[in-house]
Amino acid sequence: MPVFTPPRRLLFGPGPSQIPERVYQAMSQPIVGHLDPFFFDTVEEIRKDLRAVFGTRNSFVHMLSGTGSSGMEASIANFIEPGQKLAVFVGGYFAERMVEMGKRHGAHVVRFDKPWGETASAPEAAEFIERERPNVVAFVHAETSTGALQDPLSITGPAQAVGAITIADCVTSLGAIAINVDASGIDVAFGATQKGLSCPPGLSPITVSDRGIEVLKARKSPCSVWYLDLKLILDYYEGGHRYHHTAPITSFYALREGLAAVREEGVEARFTRHKQAHAVFVKRLEAIKLEMFIQDPAIRIPSINTVRVQEGVDDVKTRKRLINEFGIEIGGGFGPLAGKIFRIGLMGPFANEENATMVVGALAHCLRE
Amino acid sequence: MPVFTPPRRLLFGPGPSQIPERVYQAMSQPIVGHLDPFFFDTVEEIRKDLRAVFGTRNSFVHMLSGTGSSGMEASIANFIEPGQKLAVFVGGYFAERMVEMGKRHGAHVVRFDKPWGETASAPEAAEFIERERPNVVAFVHAETSTGALQDPLSITGPAQAVGAITIADCVTSLGAIAINVDASGIDVAFGATQKGLSCPPGLSPITVSDRGIEVLKARKSPCSVWYLDLKLILDYYEGGHRYHHTAPITSFYALREGLAAVREEGVEARFTRHKQAHAVFVKRLEAIKLEMFIQDPAIRIPSINTVRVQEGVDDVKTRKRLINEFGIEIGGGFGPLAGKIFRIGLMGPFANEENATMVVGALAHCLRE
Repeated sequence: MPVFTPPRRLLFGPGPSQIPERVYQAMSQPIVGHLDPFFFDTVEEIRKDLRAVFGTRNSFVHMLSGTGSSGMEASIANFIEPGQKLAVFVGGYFAERMVEMGKRHGAHVVRFDKPWGETASAPEAAEFIERERPNVVAFVHAETSTGALQDPLSITGPAQAVGAITIADCVTSLGAIAINVDASGIDVAFGATQKGLSCPPGLSPITVSDRGIEVLKARKSPCSVWYLDLKLILDYYEGGHRYHHTAPITSFYALREGLAAVREEGVEARFTRHKQAHAVFVKRLEAIKLEMFIQDPAIRIPSINTVRVQEGVDDVKTRKRLINEFGIEIGGGFGPLAGKIFRIGLMGPFANEENATMVVGALAHCLRE
Repeated sequence: MPVFTPPRRLLFGPGPSQIPERVYQAMSQPIVGHLDPFFFDTVEEIRKDLRAVFGTRNSFVHMLSGTGSSGMEASIANFIEPGQKLAVFVGGYFAERMVEMGKRHGAHVVRFDKPWGETASAPEAAEFIERERPNVVAFVHAETSTGALQDPLSITGPAQAVGAITIADCVTSLGAIAINVDASGIDVAFGATQKGLSCPPGLSPITVSDRGIEVLKARKSPCSVWYLDLKLILDYYEGGHRYHHTAPITSFYALREGLAAVREEGVEARFTRHKQAHAVFVKRLEAIKLEMFIQDPAIRIPSINTVRVQEGVDDVKTRKRLINEFGIEIGGGFGPLAGKIFRIGLMGPFANEENATMVVGALAHCLRE
């Protein structure tokens, strides 16, 4: 037995989310080498199931050996060549990170700013993209820092019209919300394992359209990051599993099992369940006179509910009480939203009506003196 | 229970190595959030134990959220500024990778080449470094692709004399062989979890000397890779755990437990055990008239034994028989050594005299018609 005992938490934060028992069991299966046929089989199982979750028929689907941020960096580093123009839609923390990465990889970054928590409308996105005519357009599908959901089509349509590649951060949407990569016209979508897929953090699923692969193959300079070079990773799939680096096998076992659970439930049923849990959450919240931070219900992320902290309430104290009295972890705001919002995740096995009711009840309790 | 059953393998390859049961148990402990005090405690436990394994009193010790290659890229990307001179000692595959990464991060790369399997002597290293006067010198401590061990002092002494920062790839040595970072005068050492530490792959432990931290803080340009930016990671430790990215919590649990096992055995006792297993392996091998690939016993890596494939022997067929008849995985050679060597790891719980005798016996069996 291990020499340490972690406290039991109920993970209602913005991620990591609660992990089902079967995923823990998968992780305690003995590892094989990364060149073992069983490992190749595991990789293919995962790719098949990820296509369903992403909503794509793309041939390129991969799991990067890093967390969601490595997926973001891979997307930027592989699709930006020095001096190219990157347009970023900014309305929260993770979009700011894309700007920062773009600069580091030599992009000329232009940004369309909205206050944190708002998203770009279709006319705004079209006007900006037509004016800037960038090589690459990046946006955050589900902005974890604010709870706002960006409609992809508003951005991908105009981007395609100017021949730009589109990158969507789907870290918080993958597995919880429909992304529909193909129908949404997204060229590069990346996610994470520890939110909608309810696995531990450590892998970043990524998919690239055929058009994206063409652009990748036509690159003039090598990707600046060897570890995240998608061309080398393409060689792995097209070149008979040519060795690139030692994959984190146990994380692959976890993801394989987490995706099997998604498949058994059904992708659409899973998305519906997240929506229903969200609807109940909002109803319960309004019943105790609390307010959602995102005003427009159409752009609320179902799996991360952001709640306005009322005047005079100490957000840190409230969250400490939730941990101490209920073992419940929720998230706070950061940047301009520090102290102003709670971020309450209803993800994976926890996305159901009972938990929505329970967590609002616990919050109400901790808000009373 | 998980819906898949991996085959049982005995991992005698160059890594991943066999994982003790207690590490699997640690991975099935429930996760907490990455901002949970228990997670901070886990991080500190790991850092303390890693100092003992690295042989350092460096204040900066960290576990990167990626495999060993991410540690290599972090070392190069953070300590090279565009246009600076990087000197690499090359005698195998992983040193070639350092050259490649150096180029991608804008270094002017100069290389000292030896045939695969040889290392640089002290006079050779001194002459090269004094002639080139590089900003950064990189070498592979234990070259997994060949089985050769480079004496660090031959390189670090001359490097310090010209004011260069030294980077050592310790992926294969960490946890199995003494590195003695401080006594060896290494500024930046990185490793992996899936070899000498017998944990699953997924984290890259890294340590940086105080002199290295000064150089890092004095950088003029930001590190090109946001995900691996050690300055931002330094902020995490110096700035009250400021959020950088979501750490792979389960991998941290595994490493915490793997290091507890190392501590209980004693670091020195563990290194001695690896040496003893190696000595028995060589004796058994020579008894059946097989030959070690590395001629000079002084530069053999105790934990990876490279064995010459005899004339007329089919290396792939032999390895397939080992898997099919014994469930034993060993490694083959690659690059110029493809088909020419077997790579047989004796690492972690498998590094003992009985296993050394057993694996040579199994190999002998599979080499007979």
